Amino acid sequence: MPSSPLPQQLTFLREIDRLKSVVRLTPLLDRSRRENSAEHSWHLALYALVLAEHAAGEVDVLRVVKMLLIHDIVEIDAGDVPFHVPESHAGQAERERLAAERLFGLLPEAQAAEFRELWFEFEAAQSDDAKFAKALDRFQPMLHNAATEGGTWVECAVTLEQVKQRCRPPIEKGSPALWAVAEQMAEAHLGPADGETPDQAA
Amino acid sequence: MPSSPLPQQLTFLREIDRLKSVVRLTPLLDRSRRENSAEHSWHLALYALVLAEHAAGEVDVLRVVKMLLIHDIVEIDAGDVPFHVPESHAGQAERERLAAERLFGLLPEAQAAEFRELWFEFEAAQSDDAKFAKALDRFQPMLHNAATEGGTWVECAVTLEQVKQRCRPPIEKGSPALWAVAEQMAEAHLGPADGETPDQAA
Repeated sequence: MPSSPLPQQLTFLREIDRLKSVVRLTPLLDRSRRENSAEHSWHLALYALVLAEHAAGEVDVLRVVKMLLIHDIVEIDAGDVPFHVPESHAGQAERERLAAERLFGLLPEAQAAEFRELWFEFEAAQSDDAKFAKALDRFQPMLHNAATEGGTWVECAVTLEQVKQRCRPPIEKGSPALWAVAEQMAEAHLGPADGETPDQAA
Repeated sequence: MPSSPLPQQLTFLREIDRLKSVVRLTPLLDRSRRENSAEHSWHLALYALVLAEHAAGEVDVLRVVKMLLIHDIVEIDAGDVPFHVPESHAGQAERERLAAERLFGLLPEAQAAEFRELWFEFEAAQSDDAKFAKALDRFQPMLHNAATEGGTWVECAVTLEQVKQRCRPPIEKGSPALWAVAEQMAEAHLGPADGETPDQAA
């Protein structure tokens, strides 16, 4: 008789409790504190359930939800690097790869392989499922920024052009409808759209 | 042309951000603070993905995950009532029913109806999907209590018999394998198992 997979599964489920202590730059909508990566992942899974009809491609909602539930687990080892702080990104891909090996490797092998593959697929953002999941991961902070007088846009002193350059490709590829909303929000908060703000001089 | 469902959907997704501020009695495993209901829901969705093979019945994993992602949203209006504080439960069912109407009612009608029905199905705990979801919702706090020297068992001064009486039916109905683990954890922390602790005299 094969041994029970339960001990390994419970070890993994205990270990990922630590994601609740990984704090992101994005504020909660009531600005009482910053969001952590576990509750962020919950929120994104709901985005996927509610907004699936706006995906650019044909998506498998369960696969998208799985990707979003696990996409930040690597941050337990690798930490969160804020999207609008590019200088923090050096070496992060390798740190996250190692984290994926260790953390998903706590699971029984078949599940470990499934989660690793889903996570790599999400990171690559090539499949329809991954493009939509990635679009939601970029869209949600924009909604929070727009609802908190600029949020991390203001905190990181990003310009409208930088927001468009960084956010348009991943969001538009996964959901043109969501990019249309996101662009309006960014323009309303960071206007004008002509790229001639002082920060653009260089 | 029908109007876009996006504004209603985004209103709902903004509103449920408040679940991140509903604090439960259960501690994080590192005991740094108590868990909130949004990150709890994320954790449970992972439990469902990882532990589905241990469900008593045939379960549809996407439906179970959906139930767990939305099961606590009613607490935004109704608050959390701790499982081991029965005197807090009076009137809660009606408060939660009203909350489900208001909160899911923010969505376009078809989605509102789907979420309401899933939530009622979870609460009724009669279908195989709902039994398994409910079992996970009862099992996860037991794992946290066992890993934090008793957690809410100690805080709420519950006896082993009370834990068994309250937790065995919902967990065993959804997953006998998980109840076997849960019972061992409770006995290890709250033993003896003979029901003759002083609190049982009445």
